[in-house]
Amino acid sequence: MTGLGYLLITRENTVAESAGFRGRNVLVTGGAGFIGSNLARRLADMGAKVVLVDSLIPEYGGNLFNVCEIRDRVQLNISDVRDEHSMKHLVQGQDYLFNLAGQTSHMDSMESPQTDLEINCKAQISILEACRRFNPGIRIVFASTRQVYGRPEYLPVDERHQLRPVDVNGINKMAGEWYHILYSNVYGIRSSALRLTNTYGPRMRIKDARQTFVGIWIRKVLEGVPFEVWGGTQLRDFTYVDDCVEALLLAASAEAAVGKVYNLGSDEVISLQELAGLLVDVAGTGAFRVRDFPAERKAIDIGDYYADFSLIRDEVGWQPTVGLRQGLLETVEYFRTNLGHYL
Amino acid sequence: MTGLGYLLITRENTVAESAGFRGRNVLVTGGAGFIGSNLARRLADMGAKVVLVDSLIPEYGGNLFNVCEIRDRVQLNISDVRDEHSMKHLVQGQDYLFNLAGQTSHMDSMESPQTDLEINCKAQISILEACRRFNPGIRIVFASTRQVYGRPEYLPVDERHQLRPVDVNGINKMAGEWYHILYSNVYGIRSSALRLTNTYGPRMRIKDARQTFVGIWIRKVLEGVPFEVWGGTQLRDFTYVDDCVEALLLAASAEAAVGKVYNLGSDEVISLQELAGLLVDVAGTGAFRVRDFPAERKAIDIGDYYADFSLIRDEVGWQPTVGLRQGLLETVEYFRTNLGHYL
Repeated sequence: MTGLGYLLITRENTVAESAGFRGRNVLVTGGAGFIGSNLARRLADMGAKVVLVDSLIPEYGGNLFNVCEIRDRVQLNISDVRDEHSMKHLVQGQDYLFNLAGQTSHMDSMESPQTDLEINCKAQISILEACRRFNPGIRIVFASTRQVYGRPEYLPVDERHQLRPVDVNGINKMAGEWYHILYSNVYGIRSSALRLTNTYGPRMRIKDARQTFVGIWIRKVLEGVPFEVWGGTQLRDFTYVDDCVEALLLAASAEAAVGKVYNLGSDEVISLQELAGLLVDVAGTGAFRVRDFPAERKAIDIGDYYADFSLIRDEVGWQPTVGLRQGLLETVEYFRTNLGHYL
Repeated sequence: MTGLGYLLITRENTVAESAGFRGRNVLVTGGAGFIGSNLARRLADMGAKVVLVDSLIPEYGGNLFNVCEIRDRVQLNISDVRDEHSMKHLVQGQDYLFNLAGQTSHMDSMESPQTDLEINCKAQISILEACRRFNPGIRIVFASTRQVYGRPEYLPVDERHQLRPVDVNGINKMAGEWYHILYSNVYGIRSSALRLTNTYGPRMRIKDARQTFVGIWIRKVLEGVPFEVWGGTQLRDFTYVDDCVEALLLAASAEAAVGKVYNLGSDEVISLQELAGLLVDVAGTGAFRVRDFPAERKAIDIGDYYADFSLIRDEVGWQPTVGLRQGLLETVEYFRTNLGHYL
């Protein structure tokens, strides 16, 4: 267990314990994944009874190492959200569902669009139907993505921006998000959706670029291999995983968030090239080269993106608290200690 | 064959024969359905080589009677768009695909969301993948629906209006539409999507309200049974099927329409109660009563809707030519003659 539980900087929890997770039953799909395992740790610390669902498909984010430190305090149920029967049982008796399981890779969604559909649409309908039939009082937060917007028409992108997804993943996540809102509006299954943007931090997938390009950058920095920056001038915003977890918990606790979709975002907007420089600076090692966007990716390049997150700030009280430099530092330190578990 | 080929008013074709359908290979999914069979008739008249795909599922729009008059001039292939293997063969060698097959009932989509997903999403991906692999030069027009908008925030609704569907059908059609635009943008499978609004006319389903409420109204008028108007003050726009067919043909022929989504609409906006009165007036018989919207439908009621169709008018040259009175007259006369085939 060496190297686990690493925390460079301690922050106060900003969701009060009184928010009501102590002793509550909480189901987290994608629970051994990046965001799911960070959320699980936080929920366990707050005294929630946590069940994690994860399929541990090698190409996805699930990693047993992510949860081994909390394995005595949470229940891990290895199963696939596409398995209707197991999900039907698992949702019963839960007070909260953090619905994070998904296919997230843009390229995989183009190569296997039907698989993306099964996970991001078909399974979502099954889960919502199970809740409707067996646990209509459950409170759900669904992890959506900025990818639903496609190429921005204006910046920062607010929730009223048109949805014009540029890959199969974006289309299916858009549908998955709307199923949740629909079941909230029509059946009263209280749900919220968060459109995440470039979440990063300890326990992310760094083996490849399936969870943001930042993962593979970090891996290469730590392996001493130069990494590639495609384009370089594109602007982006980033969310440190603790801030993302905070947003999930706040959304689940806020009555105002029922039936709503919110952007996450950051005040720190940065170009990819600047980010690469910052990462190398923070890590104290590493090198990168800037190259043109690969031809086969051009059609799904979205240019600059950053979000207006004033809606969740005003209605739910969320705002990011971890700056990029600090977040990258914690991330690099985590993976420096635990690299072998993520390759 | 008595009663077939009925045409109260003859109109000139406004898509010139030169638009290029003569001798061309055309596949129409949902080809024995309402819009599909009217389109098939028009294509056959223009000398196209037409293959119709229809599953003839009793709850959907396919009806052999719709195509029996043209059965010597088109090829009918009875199969389901969910059948990947048959679709893989059927798309090969086609110059055009009018992709009209779909689950259209809002209530059915809520009762069987997975079936709606299979037809309106999974099958669409299969069809597009088959085109990508075996016939990338095909030109596709996809029939979408105003249902993707949900409850309008402003009127008339243009294509920039937010997509906020209020039923599973609207969500899945939204995804289906975007797969087509995506495959056009990314793979060059030239596609367009039309957001249809309350299409009516000869050969529509009148057995029940699965294709607009107008169908069941007409049936009841002709059977001498009073029909119900829910609400009554809601504003709507309507498209006579010949105008819809014209829009499909124009979209397929216009280079400007590639990768685009267009509203259809009408300058004649009318309340449901006025429409009911007009129908009874045109039919010279019938009665209706206005009642409150049923409680179980309220959550998916969208209030007033009518479209801004200036985009397709300006870019493609389409506009409706058949007024409501004239269209209802032709529709009522058609079903008066052929009622037995539609019950």
